[in-house]
Amino acid sequence: MDAPLQSRRWRLAGPMAGTISDDKLAFETGEVRAITTGEVLVRNRLLSIDPTTRLWLSDVDQKATPIKIGETVRSFVYGDVIVSEQPGIAPGDRVFGIGGWEDISVVSGARPVLGPDDLPFEAQASVVGMTGLTAWFGVQDLCRPVPGETMVVSAAAGAVGLIAAQLGKLAGARVVGIVGSAEKCRHLVEEIGLDACVLRTSPDLTSDLAAACPDGIDVAFENVGGAVLDAVLESINPGARVIICGMIAGYEAKGGWPRHDLRPILMKSARIEGLLISKYWKRLDEGAAGLGDLVRRGALKWEVDVLDGLERAPDALRRVMAGHNRGKMLVRL
Amino acid sequence: MDAPLQSRRWRLAGPMAGTISDDKLAFETGEVRAITTGEVLVRNRLLSIDPTTRLWLSDVDQKATPIKIGETVRSFVYGDVIVSEQPGIAPGDRVFGIGGWEDISVVSGARPVLGPDDLPFEAQASVVGMTGLTAWFGVQDLCRPVPGETMVVSAAAGAVGLIAAQLGKLAGARVVGIVGSAEKCRHLVEEIGLDACVLRTSPDLTSDLAAACPDGIDVAFENVGGAVLDAVLESINPGARVIICGMIAGYEAKGGWPRHDLRPILMKSARIEGLLISKYWKRLDEGAAGLGDLVRRGALKWEVDVLDGLERAPDALRRVMAGHNRGKMLVRL
Repeated sequence: MDAPLQSRRWRLAGPMAGTISDDKLAFETGEVRAITTGEVLVRNRLLSIDPTTRLWLSDVDQKATPIKIGETVRSFVYGDVIVSEQPGIAPGDRVFGIGGWEDISVVSGARPVLGPDDLPFEAQASVVGMTGLTAWFGVQDLCRPVPGETMVVSAAAGAVGLIAAQLGKLAGARVVGIVGSAEKCRHLVEEIGLDACVLRTSPDLTSDLAAACPDGIDVAFENVGGAVLDAVLESINPGARVIICGMIAGYEAKGGWPRHDLRPILMKSARIEGLLISKYWKRLDEGAAGLGDLVRRGALKWEVDVLDGLERAPDALRRVMAGHNRGKMLVRL
Repeated sequence: MDAPLQSRRWRLAGPMAGTISDDKLAFETGEVRAITTGEVLVRNRLLSIDPTTRLWLSDVDQKATPIKIGETVRSFVYGDVIVSEQPGIAPGDRVFGIGGWEDISVVSGARPVLGPDDLPFEAQASVVGMTGLTAWFGVQDLCRPVPGETMVVSAAAGAVGLIAAQLGKLAGARVVGIVGSAEKCRHLVEEIGLDACVLRTSPDLTSDLAAACPDGIDVAFENVGGAVLDAVLESINPGARVIICGMIAGYEAKGGWPRHDLRPILMKSARIEGLLISKYWKRLDEGAAGLGDLVRRGALKWEVDVLDGLERAPDALRRVMAGHNRGKMLVRL
């Protein structure tokens, strides 16, 4: 047997509350463990940098197991198979799955990258990757906007929001974004085609949003939570669908997780529903085909924000948590 | 033209916060106003005493218009038509609609009482009336429990909860009640057939409920809100449906309306949905037929808690708000 492969990796070194701090992370080199049946070794090419990783790094109640101290920071990875013990997957295959911030990941249940072969790899890791698919199933399966409805998308310039907002427009809805900077607002309205945009940081967020939605809110694709969700709930219409895809406002919150007044849900016969892409695991091909088709027809814009080098993964996640990224954040190895 | 009819009535005399106080209500006698097209005069026989009236008496944000100071206290009423200007409704018809705490109400859009003719009037005003119908559509249309699932019903001995809990059992679910007294628990388990019951007032409500639902909660029919809803959310399963029919915990709450941590909704891909019977206004006959059939077959028990005399309407509502009623609270005139 060959000598074990070496891999650089970022490990969680201590409990992580508030902003991501370097002294709670350790950058080390170590041996890659042997794989067993159902696993592959992947040489990572792109790391998907998502708020979810920040949630995994905390100890709040969540669906997935939090990252324990000493473990490698977990994320979706996109890369090339080196060794495979997984039926149907061969060395050289380009795959994705849950790996980590490291050169080489052991991935269980890897899947070939999705979408048309002629798309750039960065598109396979964004608009037809996990974040684009999250937007797709959230809009098509849960939000279901129809022409004439008003749809609000928070973090609308982010990896999921940018795609969700455009899918809302394609469905015929009036789409209003909520973002963290005036420049993002300008970009979304002038270049992406949203109907209006408001600043998340406004002290008058609730009234700004109400003014931007004169007919009320029928659908909300919520990535933020906290005060943003409160502002949305203030303006919902009867029968509104509020989809919660993320609650980034809580991941680094001091003073406890945000809580919400649910009166509008009762008074408006409305709905709040959680969206996890894991529910759609068996339907990913369907979503990637739909998204891939839109991209090839030029009907759906996608944007990536790439930092080069594994050592910059913490910077990339800080960039996402601060809302300084535009589009899908990736680290290229 | 005849001399105007006289009617006794309860009016809101001042802003009502906290428990219902007699000095914020006035009991008076006055003339009944003339009716116009689409209206009928109803001699009230049964007043439906519901937490909703307490909500209408407050100034919190709600779907309906709050009762203004000086106005008659609003409620559903069941009675006999005296004069009709509404097509299809004739004097002598037994109808229901939105009226008030008074001998004679002007009702707009009255409807003939629902359900089989051979049911007692008290059944027409409860199990096949607005509260039973609320349970019916909430369970059949929103909760949709299936065999093997666990369904939690709060205020399970109340007008809506008692029916919802039995409909859950009829659908094959394991049904767990949440109520305000040990006697209600005993009654629900021994006489109504619920699988388990926990006390809303327990200091360990969350762990009590988790213990009573060892397989987690798939469906919740929530009438209470506040700490009860928090306890429910702690134990929901992936894909859970939490239906909010009422939030009685907030109607008289001091220190602001209860707020909720929505993490479980995201982490479990679950749903919270508001239930207002007004959404089903065109389908009431369908629901009454279904409920009436169950009652006649002896498959659905119904209970009413009746106080005699209009002057006791405030007592009746206090009884409901304190959770001292069992089954549907009515005032008989």
